[in-house]
Amino acid sequence: MAMDLTKISSPSFLKSLDNEQLKELSEDIRSFLIEKGSVTGGHIGPNLGVVELTIALHKTFNSPEDKFLWDVGHQAYVHKILTGRADQFDTLRQFKGLCGFPKRIESEHDVWEAGHSSTSLSAAMGMATARDLQNKKNYVIPIIGDGALTGGMALEAMNHIGHEKTNMIVILNDNEMSIAPNVGALHNVLGKLRTHGKYNKAKDDVEFLLKKIPAVGGMIAGTAERVKDSLKYLLVSGVFFEEMGFTYLGPIDGHNFEALEENLKNAKKMDGPVLLHVITKKGKGFKPAENDKIGTWHGTGPYKMETGDIIKSSSKAPSWSGLIAETARKLAREDSRIVAITPAMPVGSKLEGFASEFPNRMIDVGIAEQHAATMAAGLAAEGMKPFLVIYSTFLQRAYDQVLHDICRQKLNVVIGIDRSGLVGADGETHQGVFDISFLRHMPNMVIMMPKDENEGQHMVKTAFDYADGPIAIRYPRGNGLGVPLDDELKSIPIGSWEVLKAGTQAAILTFGTTIPMSMQAAAELEQAGISVEVINARFIKPLDGDMLRQLQQRNIPIITVEESMLQGGFGSAVMEFYNENDLTATIKRIGIPDMFIEHGDVNLLLNEINVTSDAIVKLVEKTINQENRYIPS
Amino acid sequence: MAMDLTKISSPSFLKSLDNEQLKELSEDIRSFLIEKGSVTGGHIGPNLGVVELTIALHKTFNSPEDKFLWDVGHQAYVHKILTGRADQFDTLRQFKGLCGFPKRIESEHDVWEAGHSSTSLSAAMGMATARDLQNKKNYVIPIIGDGALTGGMALEAMNHIGHEKTNMIVILNDNEMSIAPNVGALHNVLGKLRTHGKYNKAKDDVEFLLKKIPAVGGMIAGTAERVKDSLKYLLVSGVFFEEMGFTYLGPIDGHNFEALEENLKNAKKMDGPVLLHVITKKGKGFKPAENDKIGTWHGTGPYKMETGDIIKSSSKAPSWSGLIAETARKLAREDSRIVAITPAMPVGSKLEGFASEFPNRMIDVGIAEQHAATMAAGLAAEGMKPFLVIYSTFLQRAYDQVLHDICRQKLNVVIGIDRSGLVGADGETHQGVFDISFLRHMPNMVIMMPKDENEGQHMVKTAFDYADGPIAIRYPRGNGLGVPLDDELKSIPIGSWEVLKAGTQAAILTFGTTIPMSMQAAAELEQAGISVEVINARFIKPLDGDMLRQLQQRNIPIITVEESMLQGGFGSAVMEFYNENDLTATIKRIGIPDMFIEHGDVNLLLNEINVTSDAIVKLVEKTINQENRYIPS
Repeated sequence: MAMDLTKISSPSFLKSLDNEQLKELSEDIRSFLIEKGSVTGGHIGPNLGVVELTIALHKTFNSPEDKFLWDVGHQAYVHKILTGRADQFDTLRQFKGLCGFPKRIESEHDVWEAGHSSTSLSAAMGMATARDLQNKKNYVIPIIGDGALTGGMALEAMNHIGHEKTNMIVILNDNEMSIAPNVGALHNVLGKLRTHGKYNKAKDDVEFLLKKIPAVGGMIAGTAERVKDSLKYLLVSGVFFEEMGFTYLGPIDGHNFEALEENLKNAKKMDGPVLLHVITKKGKGFKPAENDKIGTWHGTGPYKMETGDIIKSSSKAPSWSGLIAETARKLAREDSRIVAITPAMPVGSKLEGFASEFPNRMIDVGIAEQHAATMAAGLAAEGMKPFLVIYSTFLQRAYDQVLHDICRQKLNVVIGIDRSGLVGADGETHQGVFDISFLRHMPNMVIMMPKDENEGQHMVKTAFDYADGPIAIRYPRGNGLGVPLDDELKSIPIGSWEVLKAGTQAAILTFGTTIPMSMQAAAELEQAGISVEVINARFIKPLDGDMLRQLQQRNIPIITVEESMLQGGFGSAVMEFYNENDLTATIKRIGIPDMFIEHGDVNLLLNEINVTSDAIVKLVEKTINQENRYIPS
Repeated sequence: MAMDLTKISSPSFLKSLDNEQLKELSEDIRSFLIEKGSVTGGHIGPNLGVVELTIALHKTFNSPEDKFLWDVGHQAYVHKILTGRADQFDTLRQFKGLCGFPKRIESEHDVWEAGHSSTSLSAAMGMATARDLQNKKNYVIPIIGDGALTGGMALEAMNHIGHEKTNMIVILNDNEMSIAPNVGALHNVLGKLRTHGKYNKAKDDVEFLLKKIPAVGGMIAGTAERVKDSLKYLLVSGVFFEEMGFTYLGPIDGHNFEALEENLKNAKKMDGPVLLHVITKKGKGFKPAENDKIGTWHGTGPYKMETGDIIKSSSKAPSWSGLIAETARKLAREDSRIVAITPAMPVGSKLEGFASEFPNRMIDVGIAEQHAATMAAGLAAEGMKPFLVIYSTFLQRAYDQVLHDICRQKLNVVIGIDRSGLVGADGETHQGVFDISFLRHMPNMVIMMPKDENEGQHMVKTAFDYADGPIAIRYPRGNGLGVPLDDELKSIPIGSWEVLKAGTQAAILTFGTTIPMSMQAAAELEQAGISVEVINARFIKPLDGDMLRQLQQRNIPIITVEESMLQGGFGSAVMEFYNENDLTATIKRIGIPDMFIEHGDVNLLLNEINVTSDAIVKLVEKTINQENRYIPS
């Protein structure tokens, strides 16, 4: 009989369950996840993979005194169920509903929030150091995937933890596939460990090795090399982590309660940092997710529970990621210098087609945004045309590399900023709303955003034609507008804006996703007898100085609209322009205020922060009726 | 007879020199460096350490076809001498003079610019990939220090390079001490390698090992563990790097031409990535620098060539770094929650006193800014009061960690932003001029900058008293003004500005280092009969709204002055404030334009970009005489 998971208020009930009962519970949780996820969507695959692991952790340790840090954070659904939040899963990832990531205000059991990868070890080092300084005795347990381990900051942290020998139990959740197949030498190490098994195997190797040594004691000059090679094979079991200063335990079956408990209990007894290598299977217990080869089930929308058929978006328009990637692919046919780089997002950024056509020219560096950006700089320094595709929120990780390596050296790197603007269900940690504010002050940077797919494809052409430094194209999550695509690609003059609708009493300057609401506002205003111009400010840097001067001469108020932070954003850029040029103009700005924006449907979020056509209508009306206008000189 | 180094136009002359001649050349270069450095200052220690290595590299390879990438870049003086720039060393690090770092416009031999650490491997991967795609055959040779290897992006790159097996010769320049003693497990690995010697030693170990095995073939069940431990010791030589996919060569003496050439030639013949582990001595050949234990000779000002006595600044005022660090130390005596964190800059940030008094509460994480920031977040999450001290330019590396981990979770981390503003001789890569623009748009962030040391110490107190999220104190390189220090520390109300000088016709809003020039301008204007107010805008975020409203009511023009980027800077924040609040004001901004600022004396640089008291005087005069004023509504 299935347990009613919504009755769970605390994980303490686990202590008294035997393994049979734990297995039943894990079945119940799997059914619950599959059912709830079919309606809300979410990170189903990763969570199905950690059902037993999460149960075993909560049985062995005492949360919240003991601290679980879920790296990346999208695999905390089971943790949320076990800590009394099953009843909220109908609202998962929805506006004002349960967050898809750990959230400190949701529960005392959520001691660390994430969303971006590879932060858990550093945070754990901070928490463990705090514990030691406060003479407390609790355990600190970061749970990190094999993919996240390739992120530079995780390696920085391992290096430091191993050096300090700080007490900590690191759970390496090795599911063989992070979002995309893992990249890197670390992955090879893990692969060897996986196939290596336990010490029985090591013993066989010792025998094998010793048989290869021709003599004991004397006569071994010259064989050192050979011995070394053989020994290396033997010692590969955990030697990498042991070299880093960790005690290595594993690999163990992450779906076996006996093995999990035994090893977790052993780890508790040890001094210094322990790395427990747990093998799990993403999507475990749900065939469509288990059989997933390309990451569809990493994070998904609603699906049919019975078949696993994903309920497709009704949009017939191409996805933005697909349009941009496929245009780059088209250009790459003519220009052998074009090389695409992705930090572990070949599927999300729709680069599979590019990769299959140009396998040598699509480079997946793994979760390593810093390396990706500077590698792009290196390619550009040698005459290639790198196309660095990164989600806006993850580009934050490469801020210094874009500034210090790309912009400062004025290298021709094309940056595709995927998922720009609000992304919706993933929430605070994933909103792509900072990139304009953090790129705009970088000298030599060009930033553009298209109004539709057709302009989008021309912008890709523009970017690869441009040869005077870095250039970025922002594009949102989701699908385009469904406009027809020109057959021939053309370059758009850098810094040129476009009048979408003429008007005489005010001008709306906007770009990308906020163009439709601006056009709608203009239409409504027109009906009310107010004539408003709408300008596609497709270059966020440089601005269209000629057009700004013309607007100023016409002396009509300007309304800027952006789905981006107001502080240091596009509207501020317009103010700066007039200010620098000693010109007067009336400017009003609409955009994202100085706060983090939570998860939920993008339209609900925009409504909440007053980035809507209604808000534009009201602001235009107010401004043109205002005597005391904003007039810079 | 000493060679005239200024006659060198290309490194090709090295090809015909024998080892005796190379040794003579290295003597000449050392004398040259010590002599020139005594006048200009610079990174003398690191460059004295790489004389033989650089000569051997230029003899073995063919620059610029073969690519040398100098990680961090401050150790490229010898490279500059050998590539025809010895005649410019009198201008080293001076305005319009020779750059202290590789500079692409200076020479075709400078193929990659750096300044920040750990970028060379990623850039090399880009260049090597470009080479392979272009079917070229040149070598790519990143030269990276042991300290820089702990930076996360270097590890990301190693992981990727090792996986791809890309041809590349990595020179690990292991000088046992980067800026501060290295931190981390990697350092332990290198330490073991250093003491390990060559294969002779390995052979001894095999003998030792085999003697410990009781029997060959049979009877070894149960001994696997013991074997493993012994073998591990043996195999430590390079196993870490070999695990990462590199062929390891070394360790070799970096001051021995025979060893260098032999190993470089071997490396050239190998396929895949090779890591050549070279042991060098920082400061080699100059006793004061050789004996340096704390990093004085890493980078220094002018000194007496004969004695190595460093010519002290004549300022009697405390250094800013010292003042801030010592105030934190004072507070740490009363508050056991205060923990200082530095990414490899304990000396530069003057945290030695703090470290000696609170050895458990001063954490040097090595070159690992990302880890440092998120570890601070972890400490704060558990109730500690971390004091994260980072140079402004290096804080760029932790942009995402400050935003995603610290600000988003609203954690009480105190950030000491050392070397804010222009830093002078280190130039483009080190100017601390972006932090206001990149921190200001982060929700929950408080940013302040003191006018003098006394306010600086009160700001440290303010920061530790504040308990509503992150708070940053910016302070410049160099010494304070020499003002008396209050005995008792006090908290300054968050967001409160201060009138330094009353005035009636205009108001200058400024903070930190630009206050003196603003006061001077006001004094000159007073003499010319113009009454100007000067306001210490010590909080850059939040602004002092009350004071801004009062100024607006007085209807006088406002001049903002900042040693920081104009785009998204403090002046823009003031414009945004009035704009958001529908208030009109005349605003003019002085600050750093949209460009990178090169090396040179800070006053010369400020003069070049018109951030001077003269510029302020002129702008005030022009603005108050202007009819057509900037009036936001």
